[in-house]
Amino acid sequence: MEREPTRVMVAVNESTIKGKPHPSISSKRAFEWTLEKMVRSNTSDFKILLLHVHVVDEDGFDEVDSIYASPDDFKDMRESNKSKGLHLLEFFVNKCHAIGVSCEAWIKKGDPKDVICQEVSRVRPDLLVLGSRGLGRFQKVFVGTVSGFCVKHAECPVLTIKRNADETPSDLADD
Amino acid sequence: MEREPTRVMVAVNESTIKGKPHPSISSKRAFEWTLEKMVRSNTSDFKILLLHVHVVDEDGFDEVDSIYASPDDFKDMRESNKSKGLHLLEFFVNKCHAIGVSCEAWIKKGDPKDVICQEVSRVRPDLLVLGSRGLGRFQKVFVGTVSGFCVKHAECPVLTIKRNADETPSDLADD
Repeated sequence: MEREPTRVMVAVNESTIKGKPHPSISSKRAFEWTLEKMVRSNTSDFKILLLHVHVVDEDGFDEVDSIYASPDDFKDMRESNKSKGLHLLEFFVNKCHAIGVSCEAWIKKGDPKDVICQEVSRVRPDLLVLGSRGLGRFQKVFVGTVSGFCVKHAECPVLTIKRNADETPSDLADD
Repeated sequence: MEREPTRVMVAVNESTIKGKPHPSISSKRAFEWTLEKMVRSNTSDFKILLLHVHVVDEDGFDEVDSIYASPDDFKDMRESNKSKGLHLLEFFVNKCHAIGVSCEAWIKKGDPKDVICQEVSRVRPDLLVLGSRGLGRFQKVFVGTVSGFCVKHAECPVLTIKRNADETPSDLADD
């Protein structure tokens, strides 16, 4: 009898460090841990669901040097933002494909902590995996924490994975 | 090449509901989820490390009807507490044995949240699994939360698993 695969939702986002659409250190680490330590070679037992939440306000800062002269300029901006998210998902989908684990990936817009919990309620994964910067108490006050919120509110088990010490950037709030 | 198994530490404790040394609803659920959704049939890929933290103060309440007349009475009490923890671990070890996944189990004494984090630092598991009552904000103020502390402070990825709605006892603080 073929058992249903364990459906693992991994929330991924972009790095705040570079201008390019690289995955963040913490989401890349969470994804790689999941494949290496949980999926291992049992690829047919798992399905990876990749969710990227596109934060509109944050991306707005990328556009401060742009000139908006027509409605089309805004359309271009939206296209550019969209392709940024797609590029990010492509990175993770390629990795899944390379090791032969099935996956699905999609983009939603909004506040990451709210959207992640909404998508968990809608998609009903067996597990939600979140990368975390692993900041101390003091930093958390200022930068907020998606993982803390989701551990409390997501309607499924939540796996929180901190960055390795040797991957931590000089500015702890960066990722 | 034989790869090292993924070492999963599961913190287990006793139910607060019955007088008998049954596992708590949340730690039983966390353990069963781990076997069903992560280990699945890949038993040789995982090793389960079972940690029971014996809370000395809390158990003291069981002894209010006892009469202590000699040092031996206290020794008996300690033996009784010790065997309670052993009975609990036996439950989980038997389950691991039945499905053929290797395991180790041990008891430590102290404050669960501190001892769990200390044991993570000492044993270096790949993952820590914790059951959670999944209480709301208001209840948490009064009963405290081990999982919230460990998500922040444990030096390894942490998987938090809430009780199912249909397993929740009438007194939410019970487990």
